[in-house]
Amino acid sequence: MDNNSISILDNFLSDNNFSSLFILADETVLHRYPDFWKQIHSKIPQIIYPFTAKETNKSIEKATEIWNFMIDRQLDRNTLMLNWGGGITSDLGGFVAANYKRGIRFINVPTTLLSLIDASIGGKNGVNISNLKNGIGTFYFPDLVLKSRYFLRTLPQEEWMSGFGELLKYALIANKKIWNEMQTLEEVTYYTIKQEWLQPAIDFKDNIVSEDPYETGLRKILNAGHSIGHVIEAVSSRHHRKITHGHAVALGLVVESNIAMNHELLSIDSFYNIKNYIKKIYKITRFSEQEISEMSIFIQNDKKKSHNYISIPLITKIGSAKIENEIKIEELIAALVNLQSSFLN
Amino acid sequence: MDNNSISILDNFLSDNNFSSLFILADETVLHRYPDFWKQIHSKIPQIIYPFTAKETNKSIEKATEIWNFMIDRQLDRNTLMLNWGGGITSDLGGFVAANYKRGIRFINVPTTLLSLIDASIGGKNGVNISNLKNGIGTFYFPDLVLKSRYFLRTLPQEEWMSGFGELLKYALIANKKIWNEMQTLEEVTYYTIKQEWLQPAIDFKDNIVSEDPYETGLRKILNAGHSIGHVIEAVSSRHHRKITHGHAVALGLVVESNIAMNHELLSIDSFYNIKNYIKKIYKITRFSEQEISEMSIFIQNDKKKSHNYISIPLITKIGSAKIENEIKIEELIAALVNLQSSFLN
Repeated sequence: MDNNSISILDNFLSDNNFSSLFILADETVLHRYPDFWKQIHSKIPQIIYPFTAKETNKSIEKATEIWNFMIDRQLDRNTLMLNWGGGITSDLGGFVAANYKRGIRFINVPTTLLSLIDASIGGKNGVNISNLKNGIGTFYFPDLVLKSRYFLRTLPQEEWMSGFGELLKYALIANKKIWNEMQTLEEVTYYTIKQEWLQPAIDFKDNIVSEDPYETGLRKILNAGHSIGHVIEAVSSRHHRKITHGHAVALGLVVESNIAMNHELLSIDSFYNIKNYIKKIYKITRFSEQEISEMSIFIQNDKKKSHNYISIPLITKIGSAKIENEIKIEELIAALVNLQSSFLN
Repeated sequence: MDNNSISILDNFLSDNNFSSLFILADETVLHRYPDFWKQIHSKIPQIIYPFTAKETNKSIEKATEIWNFMIDRQLDRNTLMLNWGGGITSDLGGFVAANYKRGIRFINVPTTLLSLIDASIGGKNGVNISNLKNGIGTFYFPDLVLKSRYFLRTLPQEEWMSGFGELLKYALIANKKIWNEMQTLEEVTYYTIKQEWLQPAIDFKDNIVSEDPYETGLRKILNAGHSIGHVIEAVSSRHHRKITHGHAVALGLVVESNIAMNHELLSIDSFYNIKNYIKKIYKITRFSEQEISEMSIFIQNDKKKSHNYISIPLITKIGSAKIENEIKIEELIAALVNLQSSFLN
């Protein structure tokens, strides 16, 4: 039992005067902890909406289903929404909250490593459209994020691998000490990932978001690995090839570090350190020519694209990065094409 | 030709570095002024999306169509959206802009009286869902509103009547002098509505919005007449009975003034002044029992409802209003049921 989260929520509810608590619940989590929210002392009416937390449900259609459900239940503007699950849940739930009756307040309860250190923090939400990941969404900030390792005990292995991708991104852009400690890691599990690595990653993101909530500058550093990562995710899902977000980001970090090396921003040694470490931890997927060609098309549609350039953050040495590097779309595509051969060296 | 708006837009474009200009155009306006935007000097690529500006197109489905079109055209985050039309266009267009790739910048070019003095200002946007007017939407602010009477010359009569509903609301809540001047008006047209009435209404809304953009207090005053007005609109449209927004707001003002009188906030004389004036200007629609019963259900779903009360602004004397009056849902329904008999007195 996670008494701390329960008491934080109880305090929050008694400090506010919400009309009801609307819980968007990843059904896997709900089945595992069916009575979890019965522990709160508040008598506030609870309405639970279970859903299958898969990428294809991060859609306008699913959001519309949820809105219609909320209207049927006459949930008013004074409803508190609680997103209970991983990144898919908080992305979809944040979008639902941001647009329901011009915005209701919401909180996130992350149940995955990825969500705990990344997705649940920072107010970015979104749904996919035309295979464009997070193509539709807003910035809209949670009132509270209940951060606890409690739900992580039952996390499947691939979810650990996914969250670890964001954790190593954090180490690469901001914490050389943790990167070095990670080097001895042979396997990624609840037991091997050190508790001491999580809080600095959470604090780093919290601080960056509070300094630059709308990503006009500083916050862009968090996108390291993501321009390529998103493209890999989108095309993989189209080909029904399962690859998690963090895995895709890890591959993206290799491709983008390659670009950084080409621009002489990153040393050759550091590039090989990054590449070999990620190669050790993650399975290296081989993409077909068809997939690579589709990825090129996706890059053209990157949210951050402007005038045929993408401005991306690049790692300049282990533990630090530079936020704005104007990279030609063609160069990004070329680096992506080189992904596989780069892994063979 | 409206040289002033064109030069304001040209200056705005040269002060910024947008990748393209995406124009959401009410097709009626576009057919009447097909070459209007060719007058700008900027060489920025222009993409026009014409649509039928009807209430049923203010939908999630239409927004999704527009988003897909924008993605197909590879419109990036640096696109400037221009909403060219009346309130439906700016409501839908603002929602599209707010959620496209987590938000692009946009401007409004109002072409109706209603939009000029009200809808285009203030950043509220929204689409309808399950017959709930503006049930889904956000607050998201335009960079610029090009305010000009230019497009109003060709406005049909019913649009004048609609805009006039918001104008008389403004007079009732904030400007007794204009209310008194309006009393001699026999007919509502381009020629009879005085230019001098518009700017104070625009300035009033601009000021209120800048003081309270997210409607946490002061701004609620602008909702006078709207709680009932929205319900009349929603049910009328369901029964294919055409009633404009401003007409519905005018009827809403009568019902809500009746409540104010019942609560001894408004004098009996002032109530009859309001009622008789609105009766003189507007056709008084007779609603069926079925319609009235549907309206009661809609009130239950008001965005502003909380714990079975609605907090609405009420007129306290001609030219001023009080923002927060907790009115029981039952009382609002009763006043609505009395709407017709109230007009017969």
